[in-house]
Amino acid sequence: MKEIRIFTPASVANVSCGFDVLGFCLAPVGDEMVIRMTDKQGVKITKIEGQDLPLDVKRNVAGVAAQAMLAKHPANCGFEIEIYKKIKAGSGIGSSAASAAGAVFGINELLGKPYNTHDLIQFAMEGESVASGSAHADNVAPVLLGGFTLVRSINPVDVIKLPSPSELMAVVLHPKIELKTMHAREILKNNVTLKKAITQWGNLAAFISALYTEDYGLMSRSLVDEIVEPMRSLLIPEFETIKKAVLNAGALGFGISGSGPSVYALAKGVDTSNNIAEAMKSKIEQLGIDFEIHVSAINNQGIKIISD
Amino acid sequence: MKEIRIFTPASVANVSCGFDVLGFCLAPVGDEMVIRMTDKQGVKITKIEGQDLPLDVKRNVAGVAAQAMLAKHPANCGFEIEIYKKIKAGSGIGSSAASAAGAVFGINELLGKPYNTHDLIQFAMEGESVASGSAHADNVAPVLLGGFTLVRSINPVDVIKLPSPSELMAVVLHPKIELKTMHAREILKNNVTLKKAITQWGNLAAFISALYTEDYGLMSRSLVDEIVEPMRSLLIPEFETIKKAVLNAGALGFGISGSGPSVYALAKGVDTSNNIAEAMKSKIEQLGIDFEIHVSAINNQGIKIISD
Repeated sequence: MKEIRIFTPASVANVSCGFDVLGFCLAPVGDEMVIRMTDKQGVKITKIEGQDLPLDVKRNVAGVAAQAMLAKHPANCGFEIEIYKKIKAGSGIGSSAASAAGAVFGINELLGKPYNTHDLIQFAMEGESVASGSAHADNVAPVLLGGFTLVRSINPVDVIKLPSPSELMAVVLHPKIELKTMHAREILKNNVTLKKAITQWGNLAAFISALYTEDYGLMSRSLVDEIVEPMRSLLIPEFETIKKAVLNAGALGFGISGSGPSVYALAKGVDTSNNIAEAMKSKIEQLGIDFEIHVSAINNQGIKIISD
Repeated sequence: MKEIRIFTPASVANVSCGFDVLGFCLAPVGDEMVIRMTDKQGVKITKIEGQDLPLDVKRNVAGVAAQAMLAKHPANCGFEIEIYKKIKAGSGIGSSAASAAGAVFGINELLGKPYNTHDLIQFAMEGESVASGSAHADNVAPVLLGGFTLVRSINPVDVIKLPSPSELMAVVLHPKIELKTMHAREILKNNVTLKKAITQWGNLAAFISALYTEDYGLMSRSLVDEIVEPMRSLLIPEFETIKKAVLNAGALGFGISGSGPSVYALAKGVDTSNNIAEAMKSKIEQLGIDFEIHVSAINNQGIKIISD
């Protein structure tokens, strides 16, 4: 029986000035999944460990993504999916995206790669829509492509893989509080001033340039979000205190990961990243909130095969 | 008597998705200026040919820019400025920016370069503010630095020079109608929807990436302006007709230069650019409007010395 075991990583979306378009892939945090080819057509989720999630393929992002793919590319076999969750649901680092991307990546491998990795984004997005209520590629794109990704358009899907400067690292703090994506969406205003929008796109354009030129100073100056962060940060305890401590510890920038509650810093080099992790730890411990901290390289490969 | 003769080129600002931040420098169109060092302190504009503009240094962008620079860097000599205008005032291809940038560039050269080219942007901006009512660097940045420039911030000035793909060309059509910048500003709304703003910054980010990777297809897909063009294009006769013809002729994108009335196309290669120029000519002749068309490489050098 043909099967594949994969590592499907966590990711950070809504990177400051790149709200709704810019994300990147993390290295040390991720789920494992086993995808197995079976004789009987159809998709079955046979096991989920580490999280209380539905086995029903219609209600599970991995199942929905897998079925979306097989609807476009019918196979005369079936697939069983086992999910070993390490990424906490609702943490804001792409838990559902990891499952959705993992399912389509694994099935595509077992089928002999009828699709390229870009093509898979569309199917994974359909899985994502079960979790968040709308199709978006902010997390599935970096999981599938690795590195930094820019979602220019989702209809049609137009995603660009951007370079990852060699010394760039991320530090992610997950304060274990509940914060629903839906609520984080409601807090957004439908309109923004043209002035702020111009500031935002100037910053995003500069950040993209800085990724190509490895200009860490410019990355830092442009990692600013004047539009979404001022509102969403209100939902995260002591956001400004933690931000100040993290920037003092040498971070290039700090912001909300996805729609929170996780927050992330970008930094140059391992030492600075460890200092930032210490600063986060010290602040969050004072609040008495359970937490996890991940110090991570930018994962330029994305999802990968562990064994087949 | 020390003097310098320079060529100070026209430029295109508000490049589609890069409204207020992205501009580029043109090659064949530009003014000439002579800057002369004199014994007597102060700035004098001694001659203007080709355009009816004030000789009064306080009311002329070149004079204001020159004085802004000398206020920061006092010199125990003076300067005479001669301006030979080729760029039509009010054409939307940076006529005032060429004069402002030319004045500070020339004086800086004669003083032995106390400032680098980036530093000069600030002074040239002060000249620009006389013409448009507010300080902006959209045109002076590409004139001084050459190529494509991104104005991330004007306070403090933070301008990034972007790469110019080797085969990229511009075709500019100047329909000789009067259209005041002030009026073009009034037509803008103060607020935009978050949805459109996201589309815009996704497109701009993709265009920046495409400049680095020389991905002409991506340039074309991302040269879209959903925010400003729909309003300002109403002020330009038959904008949509010309746009359609230009895109049919193979343009990567088409938009308003600055605040109009000039419009520009970007294209790959000389042949396509000439076809685009023909398409523009055919449409504008039907309207019976006087016009000029410039087919131009992206001028990666910017302002230059002709003789000293």
